[in-house]
Amino acid sequence: MDFSFEVLKTDPSGARLGRLTTPHGVIETPAFMPVGTAASVKALTQNALEELGAGIILANTYHLYLRPGHELIRKLGGLHAFMSWHRAILTDSGGYQVFSLADLRKITDEGVRFRSHLDGSEHLLTPEKAAEIQLALGSDIAMVLDECIETPARREVAEAAVKRTTAWAGRARKYFEEFASRNGNPPQWQFGIVQGATFADLRRESARQLLDLNFPGYAVGGLAVGEPHELTCEMTAEATALLPTEKPRYLMGVGQPEQIPDYVARGIDMMDCVLPTRAARHACLYTSEGRVLIKNARYIEDQRPIDPHCKCAVCKRYTRAYLRYLFAAKEITAAILATHHNVQFYLDIMRQVREAITFGQLGNFTAELRARYLAGPA
Amino acid sequence: MDFSFEVLKTDPSGARLGRLTTPHGVIETPAFMPVGTAASVKALTQNALEELGAGIILANTYHLYLRPGHELIRKLGGLHAFMSWHRAILTDSGGYQVFSLADLRKITDEGVRFRSHLDGSEHLLTPEKAAEIQLALGSDIAMVLDECIETPARREVAEAAVKRTTAWAGRARKYFEEFASRNGNPPQWQFGIVQGATFADLRRESARQLLDLNFPGYAVGGLAVGEPHELTCEMTAEATALLPTEKPRYLMGVGQPEQIPDYVARGIDMMDCVLPTRAARHACLYTSEGRVLIKNARYIEDQRPIDPHCKCAVCKRYTRAYLRYLFAAKEITAAILATHHNVQFYLDIMRQVREAITFGQLGNFTAELRARYLAGPA
Repeated sequence: MDFSFEVLKTDPSGARLGRLTTPHGVIETPAFMPVGTAASVKALTQNALEELGAGIILANTYHLYLRPGHELIRKLGGLHAFMSWHRAILTDSGGYQVFSLADLRKITDEGVRFRSHLDGSEHLLTPEKAAEIQLALGSDIAMVLDECIETPARREVAEAAVKRTTAWAGRARKYFEEFASRNGNPPQWQFGIVQGATFADLRRESARQLLDLNFPGYAVGGLAVGEPHELTCEMTAEATALLPTEKPRYLMGVGQPEQIPDYVARGIDMMDCVLPTRAARHACLYTSEGRVLIKNARYIEDQRPIDPHCKCAVCKRYTRAYLRYLFAAKEITAAILATHHNVQFYLDIMRQVREAITFGQLGNFTAELRARYLAGPA
Repeated sequence: MDFSFEVLKTDPSGARLGRLTTPHGVIETPAFMPVGTAASVKALTQNALEELGAGIILANTYHLYLRPGHELIRKLGGLHAFMSWHRAILTDSGGYQVFSLADLRKITDEGVRFRSHLDGSEHLLTPEKAAEIQLALGSDIAMVLDECIETPARREVAEAAVKRTTAWAGRARKYFEEFASRNGNPPQWQFGIVQGATFADLRRESARQLLDLNFPGYAVGGLAVGEPHELTCEMTAEATALLPTEKPRYLMGVGQPEQIPDYVARGIDMMDCVLPTRAARHACLYTSEGRVLIKNARYIEDQRPIDPHCKCAVCKRYTRAYLRYLFAAKEITAAILATHHNVQFYLDIMRQVREAITFGQLGNFTAELRARYLAGPA
């Protein structure tokens, strides 16, 4: 068996300690997946990611389909070989990017017609096409194409999107299973995505409908897109309450550092977020004492590391004063060092979360993280 | 003794194998110094530089004086502490940058008045000021302020610049020696700079005049700025013929990979150049088979490493196809990987040069490097 998922311990809160086995390594869960949109986690080398202990990263189907093209990546041996990353990869379906980046998109039951944000060329992304692209990429975990809608959404819009997402999930599942068995493809898992905006009953309906398709894992999508954090948690809980306990659950695109344990407590096993990498490039550093906006003049002579409690290579070596200066001087190395630290910070939160679950201390850890983090930097 | 220089072997060509001892480590010469203009070798972390084996880097006085300011760096413990680089550092005098970057510069015997390219503020750089800044930075090797002129230069202009450069060198030497002995400064060496444009007799005159000031080392400046390579070599030879054999010689701002052994054969021990780092950011990769312009479509499916003969971390892990793609996608990691490889290539040429001198094979090595390098990539 190339793939398996095992829940090692469940906390009274609902948090789960688990182990996801893939052909590209074993991932302790709850796990954070750094985002490598275009087959590169921006400003980090693959060596750095290994050093940081990332076991799985996310890559974007939309971007890789448009450039360099999935057929090229297939020809060059798949995404792992192409980018020389031999740990696990999850690819999204491209749906979210089509809805947020592409021009002139038109949604029908068939799929989404859109123009590339790169060169204006026209494309049709269908559930089958999204599956085909991801099979070519050869990621460990592929996602089905879902319909992403703007929030807040009217109920009718959300209802229609759930219906279409389920229909698309069925087609994606069929295509994926046929293709995967027909060819000598590397083993791959495909996850379904629960939608339903902020309507509890639609979330439940979406989850129930997807269960029939028997995915090896389920994601919760369309959340943390502007709604209050409590509502994100509530919707997540509605979905996870119905999802099979023996399968991994992935909450897409979250979140702020202090929110992570809340999602874990709703039974989430996997998360991804651009925040640590994107914020790093904008001089926002995450620390155990809150966000450090390193361009601030208060750090000009600050000889402390970014985070006195951090064990990363950047905190071991460099001062806030130097980091601040590198950003002021617009040096590339600023992005490299800041990204390294921020990814370490997120991966470390997850390590602490797993430890807290092990010792039945998730509640305490959550309270402590929030208190320390929201207090702000010294 | 914190500083020393020892010539271990001299080749019939004039090439020297040496050892430069500094308070921040021993450097085997001939040595290449990667350029860290603004206290950062662009796109490389200090860890990466150590991994690559760089024993000494160059930093720019002009840039650091304007931002973050030498007084701040002094306060934070000097440049080594500021940037957390504990191997050797050579700082230029700022002269070249004032002449090439600053606005509205006006040269008098006193010094150079100029406006900052950053904010238009007015500054006066004198020989004393350039020495003061570098004493504050606490680099291992400081350079005197020299007058840099445009080339080709008329004889009268070159003659006047030599005269002024000598006068300034005298003032810089005096200031440096007084200050260095008066304060509890870290040990530091100061080098003089031979000027004289492309006039052999002026080069000799400049060298002779500087000898009286008894610098611990000498640089040859104002070369490789557009004149033919043969002329650069000839002018270099004019200077080194007069410079004391027991002191290190540094040829500033060179050069193309295939030219490096020629300078070594003229008795040069140290070189610096922005080429490997700057070219890397522009997708130009140096290899044992010549320059690889990695954006070229011929590399789209090329699964070979950048340089099959290179042992660097980038060549061990990534393909040309991936590098090409990263540049096409404008990923930051493209600059990181390309710079890493190019710096390795330059440092490796120097390792091979030193080995060739050891075995009396510099002539063969030079011919082979040129033949292989200029043949161009497969």
